[in-house]
Amino acid sequence: MGVKLDPWGHYAIEDYVKLLAEFGIHPIDEVLGSLPRKHMYFERRVIFGHRDFNLWLDALKHGEKVAVLTGFMPSGRPHLGTAMVYEELRFLQSLGAHVKIVIADAEAYIVRREERSDVVKRGVDFIAHAIAWGIDPEKAEFYYQTAMDNEYYRLIQMFSRKISMAEMEAIYGELTPGKIVASLTQAADILHLQLDKYGGYRHVVVPVGADQDPHLRLTRDLADRFEQELGLKRPSSIYHKLLRGLDGNKMSKSRPEFAIHLDDDPDLAEKKLLNALTGGRATADEQRRLGGEPWKCSIYELYVYHLVGDDSELREVYDECVTGRVLCGQCKRRAVERLKRRLIEHQERYREVLSSGIVDKVLRKPSF
Amino acid sequence: MGVKLDPWGHYAIEDYVKLLAEFGIHPIDEVLGSLPRKHMYFERRVIFGHRDFNLWLDALKHGEKVAVLTGFMPSGRPHLGTAMVYEELRFLQSLGAHVKIVIADAEAYIVRREERSDVVKRGVDFIAHAIAWGIDPEKAEFYYQTAMDNEYYRLIQMFSRKISMAEMEAIYGELTPGKIVASLTQAADILHLQLDKYGGYRHVVVPVGADQDPHLRLTRDLADRFEQELGLKRPSSIYHKLLRGLDGNKMSKSRPEFAIHLDDDPDLAEKKLLNALTGGRATADEQRRLGGEPWKCSIYELYVYHLVGDDSELREVYDECVTGRVLCGQCKRRAVERLKRRLIEHQERYREVLSSGIVDKVLRKPSF
Repeated sequence: MGVKLDPWGHYAIEDYVKLLAEFGIHPIDEVLGSLPRKHMYFERRVIFGHRDFNLWLDALKHGEKVAVLTGFMPSGRPHLGTAMVYEELRFLQSLGAHVKIVIADAEAYIVRREERSDVVKRGVDFIAHAIAWGIDPEKAEFYYQTAMDNEYYRLIQMFSRKISMAEMEAIYGELTPGKIVASLTQAADILHLQLDKYGGYRHVVVPVGADQDPHLRLTRDLADRFEQELGLKRPSSIYHKLLRGLDGNKMSKSRPEFAIHLDDDPDLAEKKLLNALTGGRATADEQRRLGGEPWKCSIYELYVYHLVGDDSELREVYDECVTGRVLCGQCKRRAVERLKRRLIEHQERYREVLSSGIVDKVLRKPSF
Repeated sequence: MGVKLDPWGHYAIEDYVKLLAEFGIHPIDEVLGSLPRKHMYFERRVIFGHRDFNLWLDALKHGEKVAVLTGFMPSGRPHLGTAMVYEELRFLQSLGAHVKIVIADAEAYIVRREERSDVVKRGVDFIAHAIAWGIDPEKAEFYYQTAMDNEYYRLIQMFSRKISMAEMEAIYGELTPGKIVASLTQAADILHLQLDKYGGYRHVVVPVGADQDPHLRLTRDLADRFEQELGLKRPSSIYHKLLRGLDGNKMSKSRPEFAIHLDDDPDLAEKKLLNALTGGRATADEQRRLGGEPWKCSIYELYVYHLVGDDSELREVYDECVTGRVLCGQCKRRAVERLKRRLIEHQERYREVLSSGIVDKVLRKPSF
């Protein structure tokens, strides 16, 4: 790609270029000029691709109603990967988008086979952290998949008529009745915002990790097939890279030791960071001589995704590494200090959100 | 079976004995003694089998809440086969059962691919005829599958977790997403009555044609699997023979010329009857000599199912036929006269029901 040596995070994009080519996801660069304000995720290509986001930006520009929708699977606890989505929502809300967050508790129950009461409890936590991250609950809606009403559920039911087993298998592989219902439920999550019952047509963008595109493909097909009958239109979507865990693999709720959770004790977070995989060399001498490899470094990824907002500062961090001027120990201590401050501030807001009782006001629980 | 020569309708039961054996449907004879009142459908084995109907009758006997639920596919127009179900509902209601009728408009839309507006319109007709047939709307509920609320739809969603593709294929053959959703919707129709939201536990019996048993098998399995989580219990079911068309095949909405519809012009009904297949012989002489074969006769079936309530009178009709004393022409004229009177009376009540506006009061339409 020839873009490897640059501090803006392009270095990992090769893994995603396949997606761009294979499924017709467009490079985000196309639309950067139409963004009313810059954001580091776009500048740094953390958000690397999109479908029809240009249409969403046009709608925003022309003062039409726009919304951003995303779903959280309430298993495990929110971590810095979850926070990337919070940050996208916060930014798009600041541009004037209505925010809608769905807690995918039906999917957690059906496909992940979790207890209903557990996922409902954890759903509250995902919303509390979202508000603590800066999402304005006054300009947002939050719901459980299992607490919705007739019109929403009817979409699920109607969608089942216009999709074949072969089409769903092509997208999801081996099917079960549960997978089918859960997938149609996701499509209803994305498309129900367009119904009059839910405020009438709004152009919706869905920010997702690159691995979530299959759901978007199903949803776009269903929107096409119900355009005439229900007036549904394709959603837009933007695609962000996955934040890797501190061991260099995908950050996952199922491997907590390699993830920074938003409610981690700051000292625990420090320990995790000090054990994290870096782009350092075998020896200090070697590193002073050859410089580090930030594009392999999970700490540098934290700088890019969360810890350094200023681009010139990020360039400095990058240069200090590749020139070998700053070694991993010193660099990690700087990251630790910033992360701990962020966590302490976030957790303070999080406690305020919980004690304010706002979540119970904005998130109606299912009746059973 | 050795029961061929008997006027009570046993003659056709061989076709159904397989069902009894194969799927553990019990002969209705078991429970006849526990019926608080007789009804010709039970006496004549038009209702020939049951599952757990004894439990339902026990509940009734002990003053517990009992209900009867059935669904109508709103395609075509109600005919004398539909009226058999109306009659079962009317009788069970008269014993003290709460009646619930579902218009299967979701299934008509998904599986039969009908227009939503058409099925909603026809649903009104099925309910109007039910009330005209004598079902007391004060002791009944009526609904469209597409006009239900959260708790009902959640059952559909939850059911999808605890059933496999192999199990559904074993019951329904080749599957589509639509068939899966429609089948789980039927299970929710039968089981939702047990939820607190809908009045709390009631022992439910479902009267069905023998061909509908697969839905009951699925529903019983789901009830077992959700007994612990939702407190669901297996429904009871009773099985009636299918009224054959006037050509001796199944009476079907798709072959109107061989079916008597409840809104048929009485003179049209007369023509249909005069063309009907009988158990007559090749010539009048032969018939006087050998007698007719009522067990082959679609007219005699109308006597058994609808036109003759008194058993001794039915025996007389039967004897007149098998002894050759009365030939088909005379017998048909008697049937025509009775049927026309029934149709005229029913259609008069039907018009009263429509003009009273009661259906709009008791049947809430879906919002789209």
